[in-house]
Amino acid sequence: MTTIDPLRADCAVPHRESDRVLLGHGSGGQLMAELIDEVIVAELGETAPLQDAAVVDIAGTGVVFSTDSFVVTPRFFPGGDIGALAVHGTVNDLAMRGARPVALALAYVLEEGLPVEELRAITASVAKSAAACGIRIVTGDTKVVGRGAADGIYITTTGIGARLPGADPDATRGRPGDVILVSGPIGAHGMAILCARGGLGLEGEIRSDTAPLHELVAAMIAACGPDVHALRDPTRGGLASALNELAAASGVGVEIEEAAVPVPTAVAATCELLGLDPLHVANEGCLVAFVAPEAAERALAAMRSAPGGAGATVIGRVTDGPAGRVTARTLMGAGRIVDMLIGEQLPRIC
Amino acid sequence: MTTIDPLRADCAVPHRESDRVLLGHGSGGQLMAELIDEVIVAELGETAPLQDAAVVDIAGTGVVFSTDSFVVTPRFFPGGDIGALAVHGTVNDLAMRGARPVALALAYVLEEGLPVEELRAITASVAKSAAACGIRIVTGDTKVVGRGAADGIYITTTGIGARLPGADPDATRGRPGDVILVSGPIGAHGMAILCARGGLGLEGEIRSDTAPLHELVAAMIAACGPDVHALRDPTRGGLASALNELAAASGVGVEIEEAAVPVPTAVAATCELLGLDPLHVANEGCLVAFVAPEAAERALAAMRSAPGGAGATVIGRVTDGPAGRVTARTLMGAGRIVDMLIGEQLPRIC
Repeated sequence: MTTIDPLRADCAVPHRESDRVLLGHGSGGQLMAELIDEVIVAELGETAPLQDAAVVDIAGTGVVFSTDSFVVTPRFFPGGDIGALAVHGTVNDLAMRGARPVALALAYVLEEGLPVEELRAITASVAKSAAACGIRIVTGDTKVVGRGAADGIYITTTGIGARLPGADPDATRGRPGDVILVSGPIGAHGMAILCARGGLGLEGEIRSDTAPLHELVAAMIAACGPDVHALRDPTRGGLASALNELAAASGVGVEIEEAAVPVPTAVAATCELLGLDPLHVANEGCLVAFVAPEAAERALAAMRSAPGGAGATVIGRVTDGPAGRVTARTLMGAGRIVDMLIGEQLPRIC
Repeated sequence: MTTIDPLRADCAVPHRESDRVLLGHGSGGQLMAELIDEVIVAELGETAPLQDAAVVDIAGTGVVFSTDSFVVTPRFFPGGDIGALAVHGTVNDLAMRGARPVALALAYVLEEGLPVEELRAITASVAKSAAACGIRIVTGDTKVVGRGAADGIYITTTGIGARLPGADPDATRGRPGDVILVSGPIGAHGMAILCARGGLGLEGEIRSDTAPLHELVAAMIAACGPDVHALRDPTRGGLASALNELAAASGVGVEIEEAAVPVPTAVAATCELLGLDPLHVANEGCLVAFVAPEAAERALAAMRSAPGGAGATVIGRVTDGPAGRVTARTLMGAGRIVDMLIGEQLPRIC
């Protein structure tokens, strides 16, 4: 792993002043956070911290509610496709707020000329993934735009769910002393997409980790209840951005052991080759959790016996600050600051 | 008004056999219904009739849930813009199921190069429209795609709401004898977009009717409760498609008085010029209702004193069949069959 390349950081600076939307604005990193804060949230006038999902009161019931658009390219990749990703992504966002996913809305924007068989295959994948998650597709929408006005198909899924009893994970609830766990190896999704893009001469040996995380979360909540303080699935911007967002939202520091972060050999090797930091690479089937210290062993045991949690492990601790600072202790014993992804690493990862 | 042009119908026939997605598949008419039935619903395995919104049970509470993507071009048009449309469209879909809108999720797909000032203006319009509807934007998502992979901005809004006491409007609840009401003049949105496209030499004197309908619905439900049998906002495919869908879902016939349908002079003149049927032109601020005959006077009075309902009027009756057949009685006393829109009239209307 390397620190942020100063050249990359320099390149990113003019973006901050840009008067046009740039690819880096969709990266999940610093530039995107700025666009959201300075334009979207500024205009909407919302002050709530960014969360994977909102909890909304409907007639006295707390309904968990989350939306995501999926624009991944290519649409089919080792380990998954845009349909499976669109289901898992929203199921996981609901799960990160401690919800059992109940129903999904499915909105398609189709480009004129998309083969109907491809639409059929993607829809079948949506159906299969939703059934596997026990979630129903209850409503939807289909729009068609002319050739060249989209890239095949974009999918927006929105989910609603019911909070699990005792669940209260929230990005703001991290506390100094919390143990930081990840559910499994990182970096597979981003590297699978990168390799699938072709032109890099890399074989497609890395498969996306796209998978639903709701059962894993249910097991954690059943074991630890509100001692699961915060959950996040580190998608765009990778683990580094997720840790930075949680640290900032909770007003705490984060310290991880670099050597404890599980990075598969193939992911590490490909990242090395391309000069990427695995901490910035997107995931679609793992989560990071801040758990009260007294519950950490129970959480780990629950994760390891739940689907997708066999590789769960402790990677660090929440500290009392500086607020929002994420540091990694290297094998040499030195500390380095782990920044959010700045600018763009790989667009259209999800 | 004219019957479907046989030439247009002929043109549309090969589309049915197409192995690629066509612009007409997004029309809101017959081709779209086929794509949804034969590909999307077939793969999803859902059998529920198409409704503007679903009612989902979350911990014993009926949550009304609806999603729509907005791809309108141009993004700013007389009477509105894509941001206002994205709020009103989803608020109205919730209202059509008798819901008070509570919260909105907002997902953007942005094209690289979109001016940030335009994004800001659209987001401000979203915020203003949402505030005017008393609905909060609680969660969202932002994706960026490369130049040429979208057309500026696509917005998907998803809404959740709580059912109004006594409300049970449902596309399947139309009954023979029901009175058919519309809330106001038809055709303004589609014609405003068409004129705004330019190149037709038409002045932009027609303004879109885009507006929220939830207060109008609340007034109707307060006055008539479950006697409001079915509601629909006739967007893509126009009043003709909405009536056909309601007639088919309820297994009833529909008979309207052509002369009773309120068509503004400018809309009628432009349709005449272009050979379009106003019954097929999209609306974004009016609704059609099937109401029990004994409640029709009350419904009409409630509508006329509610926002957006000053022009409410009776346009026809529900009959006992043939199921799914919509007929219009002309001034000459003859009846003609009013079909769903076939093929494409005007793409990217919403």
